[in-house]
Amino acid sequence: MTSSTPPRTIEWIGGLDGHVAMIDQTLLPGELLILDIRDRTAMFEAIRRLSVRGAPAIGIAAAMGSVLGVRDFDGSAADFQHKLDAVCGYLAESRPTAVNLFWALDRMRACARANEDTSLDELKLALLDEARLIRDEDAAMCRAIGTHGVHLLEPGAGVLTHCNAGALATAEYGTALAPIYLAHERGIAVHVFADETRPLLQGSRLTAWELSRAGIDVTVLCDNAAASLMREGKIDLVIMGADRIAANGDVANKIGTYGVALMAQAHEIPFYVAAPSSTFDMAMADGSGIPIEQRDPKEVSSGFGSATTPPGVACHNPAFDVTPARLIAGLITERGLIQPVTTEAIAATLS
Amino acid sequence: MTSSTPPRTIEWIGGLDGHVAMIDQTLLPGELLILDIRDRTAMFEAIRRLSVRGAPAIGIAAAMGSVLGVRDFDGSAADFQHKLDAVCGYLAESRPTAVNLFWALDRMRACARANEDTSLDELKLALLDEARLIRDEDAAMCRAIGTHGVHLLEPGAGVLTHCNAGALATAEYGTALAPIYLAHERGIAVHVFADETRPLLQGSRLTAWELSRAGIDVTVLCDNAAASLMREGKIDLVIMGADRIAANGDVANKIGTYGVALMAQAHEIPFYVAAPSSTFDMAMADGSGIPIEQRDPKEVSSGFGSATTPPGVACHNPAFDVTPARLIAGLITERGLIQPVTTEAIAATLS
Repeated sequence: MTSSTPPRTIEWIGGLDGHVAMIDQTLLPGELLILDIRDRTAMFEAIRRLSVRGAPAIGIAAAMGSVLGVRDFDGSAADFQHKLDAVCGYLAESRPTAVNLFWALDRMRACARANEDTSLDELKLALLDEARLIRDEDAAMCRAIGTHGVHLLEPGAGVLTHCNAGALATAEYGTALAPIYLAHERGIAVHVFADETRPLLQGSRLTAWELSRAGIDVTVLCDNAAASLMREGKIDLVIMGADRIAANGDVANKIGTYGVALMAQAHEIPFYVAAPSSTFDMAMADGSGIPIEQRDPKEVSSGFGSATTPPGVACHNPAFDVTPARLIAGLITERGLIQPVTTEAIAATLS
Repeated sequence: MTSSTPPRTIEWIGGLDGHVAMIDQTLLPGELLILDIRDRTAMFEAIRRLSVRGAPAIGIAAAMGSVLGVRDFDGSAADFQHKLDAVCGYLAESRPTAVNLFWALDRMRACARANEDTSLDELKLALLDEARLIRDEDAAMCRAIGTHGVHLLEPGAGVLTHCNAGALATAEYGTALAPIYLAHERGIAVHVFADETRPLLQGSRLTAWELSRAGIDVTVLCDNAAASLMREGKIDLVIMGADRIAANGDVANKIGTYGVALMAQAHEIPFYVAAPSSTFDMAMADGSGIPIEQRDPKEVSSGFGSATTPPGVACHNPAFDVTPARLIAGLITERGLIQPVTTEAIAATLS
């Protein structure tokens, strides 16, 4: 699977009797195993044990899993709808807080209802087409983000990123990494610096894996080494992903993002956030209302197998932080680059 | 060894036939083993395998090791000086770049020359006294740093620190942690936030261990979570150690220090550096000339036993960074608090 293109994180292979081919992300970067998933139980387990991660990729996995769950059904048309509901309910339990998962399963049920007057075979094919469409739409959206961000990258640019907002979190291309893949396609050589991203090391494990595999120059660093790299003039711009963006442009993203934004500001380095329009929560006026999940302290105290912190000592482990809009040079979306970042510019682009 | 005081990292137990008791820092935080070191070979190995670390503590270990190496000598007075030179030459090879190690061994040789006209027994006792003096002077110096910094700590203050500039790096009290130990002695309760400090995790392994052991409230966080803690108002001041300080007050210290200084500036949180006057390099006009050691990339790529970075991907692993004087609210030394930080104020305090 060596290639100069982004990895295809998840795809349906063959017809209705085919299977889902999906990268097992739990084994990266040590081993590249493509899972061959043929029933809903295998998909449920793959989602639950984080073989697939990243909101868009999870949504695609769930949609394809629902097809796996109904393709062998041969009862009545009415019973088919019940069967699909049951399969979707089952898959929804795999990651209970994953919004894209629920969204994708709702879309599959809506597709089934819209096709309820067709034959069972046609209905199943319509669902397979819908699942594939969800995947292809995601790939197209990521690629569009890339086209709106690629002109920010001059040949030879040093680009800092954090966590994995890459192809592995989506169908293909990623969000923060999409401009980088498009630059690579166009022969623009850039150098990527990937924060390792404690505690779960998505930067060193996943971002470094997918970029190096595509032949893109990448260097891993500990999160705390970014400031001195900036001072040395090695970083020309920063591109990050986003978990949620408020109406005013405040961005919730992986813990550490805000610190990088402060460092970038101090060095006058432009700090960009790349995300699809679905990431914007226009009901949230600003970032102060975004809830910050506190994760298991063990990710900090014993994330590498053995305890690295004395017993009984508290660990602070927030999943996200919030970067205020004033620190963000631009928001790269599939609908265009929002720059400067203002409530009005965001509303105009998303409307 | 549960106590409300800082750990005694290294000390000589008994008379000339006694031994060195030293905490094996390689086993922390999982196990507290006090090494019982009775000959120069055991001391050489303990220094080399990092059972003792921190420049002042290594110097003390070497000085005591030289006593272990000559205490059983029973030849002529002239041969004694040769024997001591040989022992010191041997110990100097344990950590070839440790300046304090060379300094301590030179001091032991100077002591032997100053006492060369005494009896062999008196000469050996003079060397033991000298080694103990090096240890006690270090403890006194650290305590003096504490007295000059303790008034910066209000009851209930949140203090952020990074790496381990604590008792384990010195004889007792530490440098950055000395004001915290003194506050604790005086009943001033503070809350310490310890950056875990990738790649080698001295913050979570060592700082959290020694503070929690002394009954001081401490919370560990990933380095990248400091900025959001500051934004939440949890941090009232930062205290860091230093590896080298230039004449203008620029500070070289553990990688990540500079980033914390930028975050502190953005939140108007005072950022202090605590270090003995021996840390100042007055021949170095500013920090731009301080060489930055690049360490083994494996500390980043496989620091926790298994590889966390794909094979062939470069890792950037500088040991230190340089924080410019303009970001530093004050320098806490054993001779007083230098605030504001200017070339003139430094020269006046050190002269």
